[in-house]
Amino acid sequence: MSLQSRFSNSLNSLPSTTQRIVIALSGGLDSSVLLHLAAQYHKSHPQLDFLVVHVNHGLQAQANSWQFSCQQQAEALGISFAAEVVDVEVGARTSLEAVAREKRYQALAKYIDANSCLLTGHHADDQFETFMLALKRGSGLQGLAAMPPMRSFAAGCLLRPLLSATRAELEGYARQQQLSWIEDPSNQSLEFDRNFLRHKVLPELTERWPQWLASTQRSVQLLQESVELLEELAESDYQTLKRKQSLCCKNLLLLSAKRQRNVLRYWLKLMGWAYPSQAQLEQILIQASAQQDAKVAVTLAEGQCRRFQACLYLVRKAELLESELVTDWSLASTPILTLPNCSQLAWLDGGKLLPPSGTEQVSVKFRAQLEQKEFSAAGRLGSRSIKKLLQESKLPPWQRNRVPFVFYDDVLVAIGDIFIQKGYVCPHNKGITLSWLPTY
Amino acid sequence: MSLQSRFSNSLNSLPSTTQRIVIALSGGLDSSVLLHLAAQYHKSHPQLDFLVVHVNHGLQAQANSWQFSCQQQAEALGISFAAEVVDVEVGARTSLEAVAREKRYQALAKYIDANSCLLTGHHADDQFETFMLALKRGSGLQGLAAMPPMRSFAAGCLLRPLLSATRAELEGYARQQQLSWIEDPSNQSLEFDRNFLRHKVLPELTERWPQWLASTQRSVQLLQESVELLEELAESDYQTLKRKQSLCCKNLLLLSAKRQRNVLRYWLKLMGWAYPSQAQLEQILIQASAQQDAKVAVTLAEGQCRRFQACLYLVRKAELLESELVTDWSLASTPILTLPNCSQLAWLDGGKLLPPSGTEQVSVKFRAQLEQKEFSAAGRLGSRSIKKLLQESKLPPWQRNRVPFVFYDDVLVAIGDIFIQKGYVCPHNKGITLSWLPTY
Repeated sequence: MSLQSRFSNSLNSLPSTTQRIVIALSGGLDSSVLLHLAAQYHKSHPQLDFLVVHVNHGLQAQANSWQFSCQQQAEALGISFAAEVVDVEVGARTSLEAVAREKRYQALAKYIDANSCLLTGHHADDQFETFMLALKRGSGLQGLAAMPPMRSFAAGCLLRPLLSATRAELEGYARQQQLSWIEDPSNQSLEFDRNFLRHKVLPELTERWPQWLASTQRSVQLLQESVELLEELAESDYQTLKRKQSLCCKNLLLLSAKRQRNVLRYWLKLMGWAYPSQAQLEQILIQASAQQDAKVAVTLAEGQCRRFQACLYLVRKAELLESELVTDWSLASTPILTLPNCSQLAWLDGGKLLPPSGTEQVSVKFRAQLEQKEFSAAGRLGSRSIKKLLQESKLPPWQRNRVPFVFYDDVLVAIGDIFIQKGYVCPHNKGITLSWLPTY
Repeated sequence: MSLQSRFSNSLNSLPSTTQRIVIALSGGLDSSVLLHLAAQYHKSHPQLDFLVVHVNHGLQAQANSWQFSCQQQAEALGISFAAEVVDVEVGARTSLEAVAREKRYQALAKYIDANSCLLTGHHADDQFETFMLALKRGSGLQGLAAMPPMRSFAAGCLLRPLLSATRAELEGYARQQQLSWIEDPSNQSLEFDRNFLRHKVLPELTERWPQWLASTQRSVQLLQESVELLEELAESDYQTLKRKQSLCCKNLLLLSAKRQRNVLRYWLKLMGWAYPSQAQLEQILIQASAQQDAKVAVTLAEGQCRRFQACLYLVRKAELLESELVTDWSLASTPILTLPNCSQLAWLDGGKLLPPSGTEQVSVKFRAQLEQKEFSAAGRLGSRSIKKLLQESKLPPWQRNRVPFVFYDDVLVAIGDIFIQKGYVCPHNKGITLSWLPTY
């Protein structure tokens, strides 16, 4: 099948709600071919908006002339152009590629709303390199499944219409169409792992086995199918385990060890957390199988996995922040107060809490700053220790240090949205309601 | 961890019922190290029987001297020795490895009963090569998961205690222990794909990334875990689909397309059939989703996949054989008759069928050889067409040509074990019973 047909088939598979196609253009061979194919597609699909975005990393002396050249390329084909200049902090040589990549995608993400699709020029050679780099890291199924032809990206999606084509095919097309492109000298440097694979390993393999790239492509596609199958299994297990914002340890432990790890990985992914290591998963499973709620927390990149009442919780770093007190909350001007510990406290008209008088100053403290130990909660006999009240409240322990204590002048009038001080109750719901959102 | 410790840990993981350890010895580096480690292990585990088996392929001029050298090696370490000479038919060069491998395992299988374990000297370099050869074929998860450290083999199991060690480690051990080994000159020939990977690709990768083999090993282990997870999913789906010797199409179609393929692969594997191609799976799924039992059959290596009454059946080649008639079945001397179509017909004392008289000759015919069209079945009014009777019998169509028609002289007295001719019924179950086994 011709490159044009494959490109068209790929774009035709986009959801019908797609309105804008964003082409990531570096000016190199791959993206120049991508742009040329996109421009042709645009002619027969004028209802779609097309936009070229060039990310200028400023890493090479010629960076600005490349940007200019990209702009000319786009304009010659009648497609709008935008450039994004990013600042790549150069650390150790090996991580430069990773940092540049992340910055590049961050810059491109700005252009992708729910009805937009980003096109990148990745091809079969790239796919092989990505696969081998995953192998070098000792990755499992997920990593070796390398790049899918389509995935969600920012608010929209990312499509790789050239993924089944080899670099040689792209070069053939470019020569036939008399395209010109930039040769980035860093593509030749064998200091980069990817270039080592490209210039040393791959030519040897394709010389011996001309079908090598097609086979790799097929293997990767089959691995992608397996990934999706394991996600299906994880999703069905997840449905039997999930509780309100947590995972039931008892049901988790009914699964085989492999399924436990599979559903934990899925849960973390669903919550937007990074792919955990085997060691981290083992730690979480030890925590899950403890006789009672252990005090230990498993630390992950985004926060901690904690256990409370035989359920596992993912507690973001923000939820673990110590908070400083807030003085002088002006209810009139600030209906939703974001606290220093990243939780939010809102007030609404109508409710049981007596509003502050005009002269009372409203402030928010936290447990560590509290002097009083006892609290007389409305609807309860006498006063009780605040510690006991918090235990009764079923708030997970890490939330008990985050819950806001609301003061009118020197009087503690409410604990979060859970308790109101006797004497501060307004009859017939004619007061206000406090609402606390532990995570924003 | 030392090679000795890894070897011991691996052998200690064997089931406690293991009585015999069989060492596959080619005389090369890997298996010589294996043998040396096994001999040490034997000293501390004298309750186990150890046996060395050398497979002589007769492919090289020195084959017999190698066998002699292996015998000396085993005897020097006080371990019993056996040799197996196999005949490898040399076809095209590329398949020689595969044929030799198959013959070798066939020969080794003879020594493995339920309490035996075969040890092979596969190491991390072999694992990488196997992985890359699977990639070259475009294999999916199952193929890329390469060699597991332990698997069932013949009636017992196969263990690879050196799988985590690199070839360099084995060589270091061999030199330290002053072992001698045979260098098979065919190991140098780059005509073999495996040698190309060993001598060309792998050194380049390990020179750049010294941890390459450890990473590959880790990736493969993670893939093996994914294979097992998908088998768990398949097993649970299979339980909801399986009927008597078949698979329910309706329930199959309730699964996602990926799960359908996954459970079909599992079913074929469970039945001992070869791993199907994607195209074959698609064909079976088309068959499964047809509006009614289609006449089409999907042909696989071992036979056909057929559909009958909204269920899928795997029909072995033997079950599709045309049969020739059998004259003169001597009931007295042959209680179980194996028919030319590989099904079996047995007779038992006690039952409804009148036995033949001393002078009546018993013969067996099949549908194609039948002249009569009608049959008067006992327990039914009048006579009916044989075609209708077979339809009513719920026998799958491919069995209707296989069912034996039993004659006493020229009289058809029974159709398989389903119908008896009126007038040939023996009262009070004092006759005989015919029993037909469609597959043996």
